[in-house]
Amino acid sequence: MSSVSIEDELLKRAAYFEDILEKSLPAEEGYAKTVIEAMNYSLLAGGKRLRPVMMLEAFKLFAGEDADDTTLRPFMLAMEMIHTYSLVHDDLPAMDNDEYRRGRKTTHVVYGPGMATLAGDGLLNLAFETAIKGAVSGKELVYYDGDTSNRYLAALEVLGRKAGIYGMVGGQCADICAENNHDYDDETAKAVLHYIDENKTGALIESSLMIGAILGGASAKQVKKVEKMGSNVGIAFQIQDDILDIEGDAKELGKPIGSDIKNEKTTYVSLYGMEEARKKVKELSDEATEILREFGQKDTFLEGLFEYLIYRKK
Amino acid sequence: MSSVSIEDELLKRAAYFEDILEKSLPAEEGYAKTVIEAMNYSLLAGGKRLRPVMMLEAFKLFAGEDADDTTLRPFMLAMEMIHTYSLVHDDLPAMDNDEYRRGRKTTHVVYGPGMATLAGDGLLNLAFETAIKGAVSGKELVYYDGDTSNRYLAALEVLGRKAGIYGMVGGQCADICAENNHDYDDETAKAVLHYIDENKTGALIESSLMIGAILGGASAKQVKKVEKMGSNVGIAFQIQDDILDIEGDAKELGKPIGSDIKNEKTTYVSLYGMEEARKKVKELSDEATEILREFGQKDTFLEGLFEYLIYRKK
Repeated sequence: MSSVSIEDELLKRAAYFEDILEKSLPAEEGYAKTVIEAMNYSLLAGGKRLRPVMMLEAFKLFAGEDADDTTLRPFMLAMEMIHTYSLVHDDLPAMDNDEYRRGRKTTHVVYGPGMATLAGDGLLNLAFETAIKGAVSGKELVYYDGDTSNRYLAALEVLGRKAGIYGMVGGQCADICAENNHDYDDETAKAVLHYIDENKTGALIESSLMIGAILGGASAKQVKKVEKMGSNVGIAFQIQDDILDIEGDAKELGKPIGSDIKNEKTTYVSLYGMEEARKKVKELSDEATEILREFGQKDTFLEGLFEYLIYRKK
Repeated sequence: MSSVSIEDELLKRAAYFEDILEKSLPAEEGYAKTVIEAMNYSLLAGGKRLRPVMMLEAFKLFAGEDADDTTLRPFMLAMEMIHTYSLVHDDLPAMDNDEYRRGRKTTHVVYGPGMATLAGDGLLNLAFETAIKGAVSGKELVYYDGDTSNRYLAALEVLGRKAGIYGMVGGQCADICAENNHDYDDETAKAVLHYIDENKTGALIESSLMIGAILGGASAKQVKKVEKMGSNVGIAFQIQDDILDIEGDAKELGKPIGSDIKNEKTTYVSLYGMEEARKKVKELSDEATEILREFGQKDTFLEGLFEYLIYRKK
């Protein structure tokens, strides 16, 4: 697919998710109305909806193009909620203190930092509530014992693990610490950067693809490969971000370039140079495509999406 | 049991949990070391460990006094992590801005507000990770379909529901809003207060007891009764808090009294008067004990604990 049609396809699929999301938003009523408003405000801030879109694609890869996605939807919603809460908390005055995101006032600017903190907490919690409810999937809850081995638990396990200290939260922590520490030697700086890219950016991409694969019926061995594929895409995505911060078009990006240099941020480009960075993006991307093709399909939307994400100009 | 022996028993059981907790703390290593340190610092701040203790008691009520509690432990840990994260975020400058808790510097004072926000997020996430891992309980994850109806999912469902906007987070939100709104008419003020007491304080007590009952083998009908029992204990606990803020002993409480009046906080006492408040505490407490006794045991530790909590002087 060409990059234009990928962009169109992505918009179409984002709209498909948007529709599911809008029908699933918690009702803005009762005494917790304000926090729910703040949560919904954050959830409806737009964005590419990459994670749920990727999850659905990974699902179809194993379940078939026309498979019923009912069981996957709660996990798609959960993933977007986790991603959203992380942005709400990242934007807080105590963190990055950002006032705008995607041209809209950030949650704490509209609702105050206390309520925004709570809204983030509410979103993270609602993510698990939603996914768990999905795992239960309308069946009557049995209070006596049953079989604990099932693919829903496997999906929940991945959701939890990749979002916390062994995933995204761990990456955020390392990022904060790296900003306050410019004394790492070269070796350590490289290892820390890899850890940050893999976890802060990569973890949710990995788990989105993994959960899709799990619920789509992939075997344990296939899920392992999907994890590697997601890790490559996540890291390449982040390195491309570093590249664009130097040679991107500010107008196309919708944000000023050069902020990493201004903030003395360690990036792949600052550590390895531009040429190495480009080479690495290609290497990671090729390997991801190779894994994807092992699953038997060529020129899929997912393949185009990887390429689009990795070689994007904005 | 006399209130002295209850206090001793509570300490013993808290120590039992403390031991489980210490063996389960995430290792303070790797690039996410700082956030893990902040999380463990928060988890080890002491406290009565009421929620896990109650959970274990509810479990024993159905599984028997000498039942193996291995399957329950991840949920005990998860509950304490959720409780702890809520305190860490509550203490933040953006929320209550408290510098001390139980005589120790609060997490944001030691680690900064950004890292404390992240530590709270990490704790909430780790709670679900831990509970999910417990539900999976060491069995190999099966990626192909299986039975989704089991008591672990039921326990997870309660954990999620009572901690979020339909539970604790909802109560916190209503509390913040009530502080900024003194224009409620009497009727509304009473309804809001009930909602806050039931959710901010009560929800985690409810879910602790419910999860214990579920994993202990209670039927759906019994779990419903346990929920009601927990709700009563939670609300009575909170009303007693309001009473103690007026007529407690500052030295015994370890904090100044009269802060509610100073902050013009709406409490059960301010809305209904001291006599009604005392009557309500007794009524709720009696009903809770009655439900407990329906399960067939008299003068249990749990019964003593309810009484101790509700009629405590500190």
